[in-house]
Amino acid sequence: MIIYGRNPVKELLSDPDSKIEEILILKDGGKEGTADIFTHAKERGIKVLLLPKDAITRISGTTAHQGVAARIADFEYSGIVNILGFAEGRGEKLLLVVLDHIEDPQNLGAIVRTVNVLGAHGVIIPKDRAASVTPAVVKASSGAVNHVLIAKVVNLSSIIEVLKKKGVWIVGADPAAPVPAFNEDLGKVDIALVIGSEGKGLGQKLKEQCDFLVSIPQAGKVASLNASVSAGILIYEILRQRGNVKS
Amino acid sequence: MIIYGRNPVKELLSDPDSKIEEILILKDGGKEGTADIFTHAKERGIKVLLLPKDAITRISGTTAHQGVAARIADFEYSGIVNILGFAEGRGEKLLLVVLDHIEDPQNLGAIVRTVNVLGAHGVIIPKDRAASVTPAVVKASSGAVNHVLIAKVVNLSSIIEVLKKKGVWIVGADPAAPVPAFNEDLGKVDIALVIGSEGKGLGQKLKEQCDFLVSIPQAGKVASLNASVSAGILIYEILRQRGNVKS
Repeated sequence: MIIYGRNPVKELLSDPDSKIEEILILKDGGKEGTADIFTHAKERGIKVLLLPKDAITRISGTTAHQGVAARIADFEYSGIVNILGFAEGRGEKLLLVVLDHIEDPQNLGAIVRTVNVLGAHGVIIPKDRAASVTPAVVKASSGAVNHVLIAKVVNLSSIIEVLKKKGVWIVGADPAAPVPAFNEDLGKVDIALVIGSEGKGLGQKLKEQCDFLVSIPQAGKVASLNASVSAGILIYEILRQRGNVKS
Repeated sequence: MIIYGRNPVKELLSDPDSKIEEILILKDGGKEGTADIFTHAKERGIKVLLLPKDAITRISGTTAHQGVAARIADFEYSGIVNILGFAEGRGEKLLLVVLDHIEDPQNLGAIVRTVNVLGAHGVIIPKDRAASVTPAVVKASSGAVNHVLIAKVVNLSSIIEVLKKKGVWIVGADPAAPVPAFNEDLGKVDIALVIGSEGKGLGQKLKEQCDFLVSIPQAGKVASLNASVSAGILIYEILRQRGNVKS
């Protein structure tokens, strides 16, 4: 994965968890703005290549690279089994968040951040028509992607059947559900919480696969909460009921 | 306030709550992409001005207007007294959200949306060094800014003193606070909930003015939740305790 531009590369360098493989800097002239990147990269022991403009343009796929780019390790997705094992290893009831085609990198990043901060166990995203872990997501997550198990699957429906067979309860977030989350007992079972997309909410098929649907009670004129706020509230509610959140 | 570009203007036109005063469209040539805007504006009874390129550039302050711009009414901020009156009129304990220099329009928009959806009573933002209600905020709020009372004040500290004298309890969100929100009784009093900025959290002076500080229990490696997720969880928690949220 290639990150380009002076500010994005500087941000990468200042994140101790970023996995930078090498930094590419313009060979001739135009040192303003890249000299400190060069110094910082050397301090961190990162390989720096000095290249002509054309080469950086070809590698970054853009002319807007401002004379600097960084090659970072591709994000390593996890398997479902790792997520289940993580919860088991901690002796906790599972809380896994399934994202039904979240498209906005800001939302994906904020949800991954919430999963990490509140202590849920992992995230499942679909392979197509949805945000994957890109540099924008890394940034929006405030680096949390490096600490959260994220699985990317071809078919959410199939995975949900697999989870059901393992005794995991499938809980769908649906603003139209008659039962508010705080009136449902979510504390004592393994849960996969399914969050719908920004525009369409939960897909019909996934909704039918859910063991039950819960809502966040609404009073206002706008149709629904932002997807990352909604996910945050439901993750909080489940962990609050479990009492395994620590202060 | 001027909105420019084909897609932003189309979105404005499709929002029935948008307060469009007039639409400016390029007079000569380049009808692709603006013909439907013209038709839609006429259907809504909005005045359309056909202007030369230079005029649209001058009014919108950019050459990137794509031949179309819209003049919308400036956002009308409320007074604190309206927010207090709104809660009183509904016979509800006050829940007012005070934003201590939130800078990201996405966060401001998402928080305003949450205030509307969950049924809190208003938002206070500071005049300087913070996001105001801009087109980006309108968009991020999904139009909720048109349904939420937002007050913009010169000095947050002074307003908090005023609220205290009116018997409002000042509750600060602080990840380091020893008491989790769900262990504090937040159901029975009027509350102003103070949310810190993305980078710095709560300012020291405001923190000292708070009657008490509450946290959202954290388990993870990342320092804190996204500001709009954090605000969402605390607004939810307070309304959950009050039991005045309806399903």
